[in-house]
Amino acid sequence: MNIIIYLAGQIHDPWRESIRQKAQAMELPVSFVGPMEDHDRSDNIGEEILGKQPNPVLKDEAASAINNLRTQILLKKSDLVIAYFGESYKQWNTAVDAGEAAAQGKPLILIRPNKLHHALKELSNKAQVVVENEDQALEAVKYIFA
Amino acid sequence: MNIIIYLAGQIHDPWRESIRQKAQAMELPVSFVGPMEDHDRSDNIGEEILGKQPNPVLKDEAASAINNLRTQILLKKSDLVIAYFGESYKQWNTAVDAGEAAAQGKPLILIRPNKLHHALKELSNKAQVVVENEDQALEAVKYIFA
Amino acid sequence: MNIIIYLAGQIHDPWRESIRQKAQAMELPVSFVGPMEDHDRSDNIGEEILGKQPNPVLKDEAASAINNLRTQILLKKSDLVIAYFGESYKQWNTAVDAGEAAAQGKPLILIRPNKLHHALKELSNKAQVVVENEDQALEAVKYIFA
Amino acid sequence: MNIIIYLAGQIHDPWRESIRQKAQAMELPVSFVGPMEDHDRSDNIGEEILGKQPNPVLKDEAASAINNLRTQILLKKSDLVIAYFGESYKQWNTAVDAGEAAAQGKPLILIRPNKLHHALKELSNKAQVVVENEDQALEAVKYIFA
Amino acid sequence: MNIIIYLAGQIHDPWRESIRQKAQAMELPVSFVGPMEDHDRSDNIGEEILGKQPNPVLKDEAASAINNLRTQILLKKSDLVIAYFGESYKQWNTAVDAGEAAAQGKPLILIRPNKLHHALKELSNKAQVVVENEDQALEAVKYIFA
Amino acid sequence: MNIIIYLAGQIHDPWRESIRQKAQAMELPVSFVGPMEDHDRSDNIGEEILGKQPNPVLKDEAASAINNLRTQILLKKSDLVIAYFGESYKQWNTAVDAGEAAAQGKPLILIRPNKLHHALKELSNKAQVVVENEDQALEAVKYIFA
Amino acid sequence: MNIIIYLAGQIHDPWRESIRQKAQAMELPVSFVGPMEDHDRSDNIGEEILGKQPNPVLKDEAASAINNLRTQILLKKSDLVIAYFGESYKQWNTAVDAGEAAAQGKPLILIRPNKLHHALKELSNKAQVVVENEDQALEAVKYIFA
Amino acid sequence: MNIIIYLAGQIHDPWRESIRQKAQAMELPVSFVGPMEDHDRSDNIGEEILGKQPNPVLKDEAASAINNLRTQILLKKSDLVIAYFGESYKQWNTAVDAGEAAAQGKPLILIRPNKLHHALKELSNKAQVVVENEDQALEAVKYIFA
Repeated sequence: MNIIIYLAGQIHDPWRESIRQKAQAMELPVSFVGPMEDHDRSDNIGEEILGKQPNPVLKDEAASAINNLRTQILLKKSDLVIAYFGESYKQWNTAVDAGEAAAQGKPLILIRPNKLHHALKELSNKAQVVVENEDQALEAVKYIFA
Repeated sequence: MNIIIYLAGQIHDPWRESIRQKAQAMELPVSFVGPMEDHDRSDNIGEEILGKQPNPVLKDEAASAINNLRTQILLKKSDLVIAYFGESYKQWNTAVDAGEAAAQGKPLILIRPNKLHHALKELSNKAQVVVENEDQALEAVKYIFA
Repeated sequence: MNIIIYLAGQIHDPWRESIRQKAQAMELPVSFVGPMEDHDRSDNIGEEILGKQPNPVLKDEAASAINNLRTQILLKKSDLVIAYFGESYKQWNTAVDAGEAAAQGKPLILIRPNKLHHALKELSNKAQVVVENEDQALEAVKYIFA
Repeated sequence: MNIIIYLAGQIHDPWRESIRQKAQAMELPVSFVGPMEDHDRSDNIGEEILGKQPNPVLKDEAASAINNLRTQILLKKSDLVIAYFGESYKQWNTAVDAGEAAAQGKPLILIRPNKLHHALKELSNKAQVVVENEDQALEAVKYIFA
Repeated sequence: MNIIIYLAGQIHDPWRESIRQKAQAMELPVSFVGPMEDHDRSDNIGEEILGKQPNPVLKDEAASAINNLRTQILLKKSDLVIAYFGESYKQWNTAVDAGEAAAQGKPLILIRPNKLHHALKELSNKAQVVVENEDQALEAVKYIFA
Repeated sequence: MNIIIYLAGQIHDPWRESIRQKAQAMELPVSFVGPMEDHDRSDNIGEEILGKQPNPVLKDEAASAINNLRTQILLKKSDLVIAYFGESYKQWNTAVDAGEAAAQGKPLILIRPNKLHHALKELSNKAQVVVENEDQALEAVKYIFA
Repeated sequence: MNIIIYLAGQIHDPWRESIRQKAQAMELPVSFVGPMEDHDRSDNIGEEILGKQPNPVLKDEAASAINNLRTQILLKKSDLVIAYFGESYKQWNTAVDAGEAAAQGKPLILIRPNKLHHALKELSNKAQVVVENEDQALEAVKYIFA
Repeated sequence: MNIIIYLAGQIHDPWRESIRQKAQAMELPVSFVGPMEDHDRSDNIGEEILGKQPNPVLKDEAASAINNLRTQILLKKSDLVIAYFGESYKQWNTAVDAGEAAAQGKPLILIRPNKLHHALKELSNKAQVVVENEDQALEAVKYIFA
């Protein structure tokens, strides 16, 4: 049995690559999916496909439609969501993805530094497991197959 | 026909009261529900019911469980969600509620200042209607019954 | 027991008003809902609420978001859909609404002139009842309560 | 990961074959399904299986039942729907399929010439992505796997 | 609290009227719905609404479409199904309605003479309660409110 | 793409074997599932597993529980149901299975001799395709892959 | 807005009556439903309706069918489940009802003495709120309307 | 066709290993999943991953979150649940899992000694098959493929 894990979170630093490498080293029977990880391409994908847009708002609308096409299909295929909140950025997409996962009955592992506990307390309560780092998240995944 | 509207958003200022008063003045056939609007009580409800907790994290856990009990029941009863993002605060609960609404197939009206457009572009794309102020949101609601 | 009927179809002529009057004369225990029936307002509702848009495509996008807010909520509340196809206009919204009704498991009564049979044959097969005029549709509704 | 794409649209010209060839050239990990593409066979399939029918309406009824058997099973198996509207034909089946896709929560890519924007504005709003040609649609699909 | 009960079964004799009278005498807080009880009208409703049909098969098709419109709406509104099998007639509609109720997760009370046990053994196993007469069925309904 | 077909119907004669052989000869990419085809074993399976039961009714109850375990799992796995009604037997299980298939949104092909049309008219209306023999049913299945 | 609360738990002592009285004193806008509270009647209801059964196992089977008819309908109507575990009895029905509530997405308030924490730890984790007494449970309910 | 079976029940003795060995000897095309079978590890998994907790209640909370992550994912993947009740232990997790299975429409085989019949009578009624030992359960599974 193989499970598919959606990695929700910001795309400003390569935390997903780190998780993938650790999971591979642990030989976990999992596949990872998630949003486009190249931030510039994520912002520009609308114009890349549909051509130059008249203004920044329309550029954003074009990009978000295509980003959501990707994430909607991949989130639906997943068995589990790992959402990572760091100390920077607004990270509203992370919260939205986490809310969708909860409403679809998909279990959620929330990774966040302890200092964010208060602001994330309601989401923590919806998460199945709350941890502070990637290693703990992957240990929890490993336990599914133990 | 009467519809129930869930008001998602931060609870630091009385924007919900403003919406309720305007809706009443417009004689819209709607009821409003949402999270606890007294911020202190929302933070303390865990200890209010379960007694003093050993530390702030456990105080938060106790509170979030009861806040989510309330919002889970009320969100489920609603026909429409209005989510308001202002320029301050992390507002992750707003984003989580919006994600849950989207995943449950409930239409979403998003109110946000134009300057937040970029950070909210994927959520805007999931929303049915995106506006900049309360009056526009209520005009859209009024149109349902026109 | 009262049932709610969504009237899908073009908004160029007052066929819905005719159905409502006949249903009232027959004293059927039904309520009718549906899209905005004032065609100009339906086209302009985006600019009415959000202000002047830069071009016709954006004017249409603004309008369609608000029209769909209305129809999504009202279609979901309905027990039955009556879709009317006439000989004029593209009527794609009618077909989309009918498809949504079918996929949601809501029964569909299709009213269409016999000469449209071929072009509508797959939709006819998805409809629960296919008739040629309003009176036949209302007789079928009356039979639900007989 | 492989995804299944349902190609909704008229069957008067070989646009599906063109999409399949381009997707193959791009080496996309996708399979395509859709309605019968031989228009004559689609019209005659009822009589082909059930024998000569008494009149054209019954011939159509026999055919549409079998066409819908096919499309119902294949649409349900798909992860994504691409709907193509051209400038000719009524294309009501395309609109019905698109409505069903939307109601089933399947994402929709709409291909249409810009001049059809107004007539398709509500469907455009339900679509996840709206483009003007096949190449753009396939670029959006490619981005899912990027 | 009031519950709606769908009465599935043949329409050759007035067993539903008997149940309604007994329920009223017991002052049960229930409403009853079900198929058309006038057998001739049930057979003729297609021609009554759509006019004379070319042959008996088409007359049946026209009637069944309208009968199913009625039963689909009323079955969906119900909280509980009581299905009655007697010793005569094929009663396939009763079995189909019972199967639909089971698949929709609606509880089923099956009334049948003991001698039909073998032929109905798989359906009995799907039913929530199996009894031999109307009085037992109504006692079970009464217990819901006790 | 391979589809799974559930064969609903009586188990007194080997009609399923005939369908399987024809499908194999046609090289259709389908698998068949269905109830136990050995009638005696189907009647005795309760006692076979649970031991001698005190009376025929309890023997039937024990058997039906295990028969339904099988059919519930296999029906859920199927993409399509073919239900066959012959001129003999009560065939209530066939009707129940067909009702469950309809309520689960699985398409149904109904095979029945024309003389049974009247008694099966409401079920015919729920079926996606109605034919008179196995060959026609398999031609319809073949068309899904054409 | 009024909510319906299902009271899951053993029926050996009158804890439900106590909750109802307290809720009434607090003027909460709630209705309570639940299993039959007269233990003897709950055990005998099968024979009461169906007559004397041959042995205790069959007496139990007859009773459980009718008890489940009641609880299935009432649990489905409820918005919230309060499950009470005391120190005596096996209380497996309480656990089953709680599991069903969780799987149906209904929020659960669990009342249990602290000393049962270990044995109930997985269920506590599925519950939305865990408290030690009725008063705390009702305070949490009151907060929904605050 | 291969089916996945979730084994619900206590983890104090190696009954699952016994079932697995027998199923393998019978060459059944099934896979088994279920909770962690090492009781100590199940109790300590919270501290194993998240570190030492301040008290036994918090240790239990940490463990249950991770145990439920595992069981939620594995239960959802399964086609069938076998729940085993022995004469010892509270076995509330078994009852909760069985309730969830029932509410998710997954068939349940209940294994229990006859002397527990009364306490388990309502759950027995929700189960698809009730047996007294592992061999009978596996015979019922074997019959699915017969």
